[in-house]
Amino acid sequence: MTTNNPSLSRRSTLIASSEIRDLLRLAQRPGVISLAGGLPDPAAFPIEAIAAAATHAISSDPATALQYGPTEGDDRLRAWVADRHTRQTGRATAIDQVVVTTGSQQALALIARVLADAGDVAMVEDPGYLGALQAFRGDGLALAGVKVDHEGLDSDHLESLLASGVQPRFVYTVPSFQNPTGSTMSPDRRAHLAGLSDLHGFVIIEDAPYAELCFDAAPPPPVASLTDRVVSVGTLSKVLAPGLRVGWVIAAPDVAAAIVRAKQASDLHTSSLSQAIAVELTSQQEWLDDQVAAIARRYRDRAETLHVALVDRFGERLRCTAPRGGMFLWATVHGIDSRALLATAIDQGVAFVPGSAFSVERDLANALRLSFATATTTELVEAVERLGEALDRLDPARVDLRG
Amino acid sequence: MTTNNPSLSRRSTLIASSEIRDLLRLAQRPGVISLAGGLPDPAAFPIEAIAAAATHAISSDPATALQYGPTEGDDRLRAWVADRHTRQTGRATAIDQVVVTTGSQQALALIARVLADAGDVAMVEDPGYLGALQAFRGDGLALAGVKVDHEGLDSDHLESLLASGVQPRFVYTVPSFQNPTGSTMSPDRRAHLAGLSDLHGFVIIEDAPYAELCFDAAPPPPVASLTDRVVSVGTLSKVLAPGLRVGWVIAAPDVAAAIVRAKQASDLHTSSLSQAIAVELTSQQEWLDDQVAAIARRYRDRAETLHVALVDRFGERLRCTAPRGGMFLWATVHGIDSRALLATAIDQGVAFVPGSAFSVERDLANALRLSFATATTTELVEAVERLGEALDRLDPARVDLRG
Repeated sequence: MTTNNPSLSRRSTLIASSEIRDLLRLAQRPGVISLAGGLPDPAAFPIEAIAAAATHAISSDPATALQYGPTEGDDRLRAWVADRHTRQTGRATAIDQVVVTTGSQQALALIARVLADAGDVAMVEDPGYLGALQAFRGDGLALAGVKVDHEGLDSDHLESLLASGVQPRFVYTVPSFQNPTGSTMSPDRRAHLAGLSDLHGFVIIEDAPYAELCFDAAPPPPVASLTDRVVSVGTLSKVLAPGLRVGWVIAAPDVAAAIVRAKQASDLHTSSLSQAIAVELTSQQEWLDDQVAAIARRYRDRAETLHVALVDRFGERLRCTAPRGGMFLWATVHGIDSRALLATAIDQGVAFVPGSAFSVERDLANALRLSFATATTTELVEAVERLGEALDRLDPARVDLRG
Repeated sequence: MTTNNPSLSRRSTLIASSEIRDLLRLAQRPGVISLAGGLPDPAAFPIEAIAAAATHAISSDPATALQYGPTEGDDRLRAWVADRHTRQTGRATAIDQVVVTTGSQQALALIARVLADAGDVAMVEDPGYLGALQAFRGDGLALAGVKVDHEGLDSDHLESLLASGVQPRFVYTVPSFQNPTGSTMSPDRRAHLAGLSDLHGFVIIEDAPYAELCFDAAPPPPVASLTDRVVSVGTLSKVLAPGLRVGWVIAAPDVAAAIVRAKQASDLHTSSLSQAIAVELTSQQEWLDDQVAAIARRYRDRAETLHVALVDRFGERLRCTAPRGGMFLWATVHGIDSRALLATAIDQGVAFVPGSAFSVERDLANALRLSFATATTTELVEAVERLGEALDRLDPARVDLRG
């Protein structure tokens, strides 16, 4: 069959073989404690509630739960998203601004398509969410990285890039509990970013998959509360279950309409059954709030355990900030190449994602992304011990730094 | 908000506002008997079986049914698709040739992306499946139409187009019970098409959503049994339920791998829950065969009723062939413009899709696509009566042709 094969399109070569996939495969080796995944903890899935919602949705209204549905999504779910957005931003949001998508990944792919053409510049956080980098690169966009630090996207760096002549179609940000750094953008920077978008005329794509998973205080109000130039992206993946593939985008009506047309050509509509389940569960707002709070508590305990264990084991050599929400801890270790460390770490039975995987332009060779979402506290302590052994093996001269 | 809006990308304007959507909206007026939809009959959905499969999948293995899954799809479902394809084509099909997609619409969008670049030529059936035309046009491809008649895609016409210098990246066909014409490609034409692809080096995209819905004899063997140059597309939408959004593509391993990369950027993976339900139900092959046979019987009775009623009511003036499978009857009425007829028909309480909606280059103004899938036999008889009244109103001089 190979000899007969058609050659692939030029544009198909833009889409890099995915590091996410290869990494997920690594992490599945038996005996490995994986802090590499970006998966939520399946033990936190509301299994009974989802099963009951599925049964009720199918039996009470099969012609909705199982039939073709409207491309823009189930109006009941759209109304819930619009109301939620109105509350969170203080700006009235209409149902025709909401499009239900097949996970937030599809939202990103569709937004890129309707807002930018091949060759256009998109600005992204550096380091940034891999799925977004892959979607935008694969779609032919040129990426420019904006530095992220412990206060999130560095709006001064963005301003200097804009001053130097970069003209982005949009700036993509995960302002709250960012993937991969876990950092949250400060109110001042949010205001600065909003002001820059109004001044320079670019769109802000605000992706908020982790915003509700806060360990103490809620993150600052969304950027969408500060300017109309925001396209907001959301998902139920981190608070209900990612396998449902239910996300959404909220945009100005004409942008939303263009997204609907693009989505129709992409997959007609998002699973009717998944949407019907989402309708059942989001209509129980108190139950949902409790569900989110329980997940946040679960992750908070793990984040604390991981953070304390890292500080204890590595001391000054490793730098990280105590996570205040989300699923990730970002650590930098002086004088290492984390890709080299990974191979040794897997031999020792622990996996993480090297920082370079999330890089746009920066050298992040000494960084690691550690997820605390799926491992238990006991496993997290053991994982840090194994990571320490891997680091010792990689660099015997440093053994004396232990303890 | 409008004044502040970003301009949309140039490529977003390629995606036409959908006639499918507008038409579906028309057909929802109360009192209208709609033969316009392309929807399967929800009364044929195996509601209890799907509900039981959902409950079992969620409770027995929530970490599969509700968690993120591999982009290429659930291996159990891929194995079922590969085995089925091996049986149907007589060619050994490996699991790594199969990618599960979010409905077959996504398969078409991804195939276009990995096989063709903007400006490349794709050849499509004329008239052809609207969703495919929309996906290919929206993706920047140039479409060339190949005539379809009662024996399906006219391979002589294709040969003459190739001889005139058209160099398609692929030829898209629905060879069995085509949408919109209902026609099935003869064995000779299938062989001719396969030979032309080997000679000219284009890929054949063979889409078979209706092939199992046969009323008497099964359609001829798939084109994929005749050449390796086929990318096959399938779906569970017409035999289980479209709301699950489970389709698939079968291609050479390197094409399949490119599709997986493109799919990852598009939506990460297809709903895990939908796939888990599909695994449960496709593993019961006898049950599934009975399910498919029951749907085919249901549609056959309706197709016969519609065909007989049309012949009785319109006689020679209307030309159509008795459907032998699928969901559609294609009719041409001498001397009418079916778009003008539609407005009158909706006033009379019946809807259909004008043939021009499916046109690539041909003038199909006197054609109508009538779906017999969702209306009961009683409704179909009444629909034909209303259609007759609409035609009489449109063209009083022809009243004498009645009966």
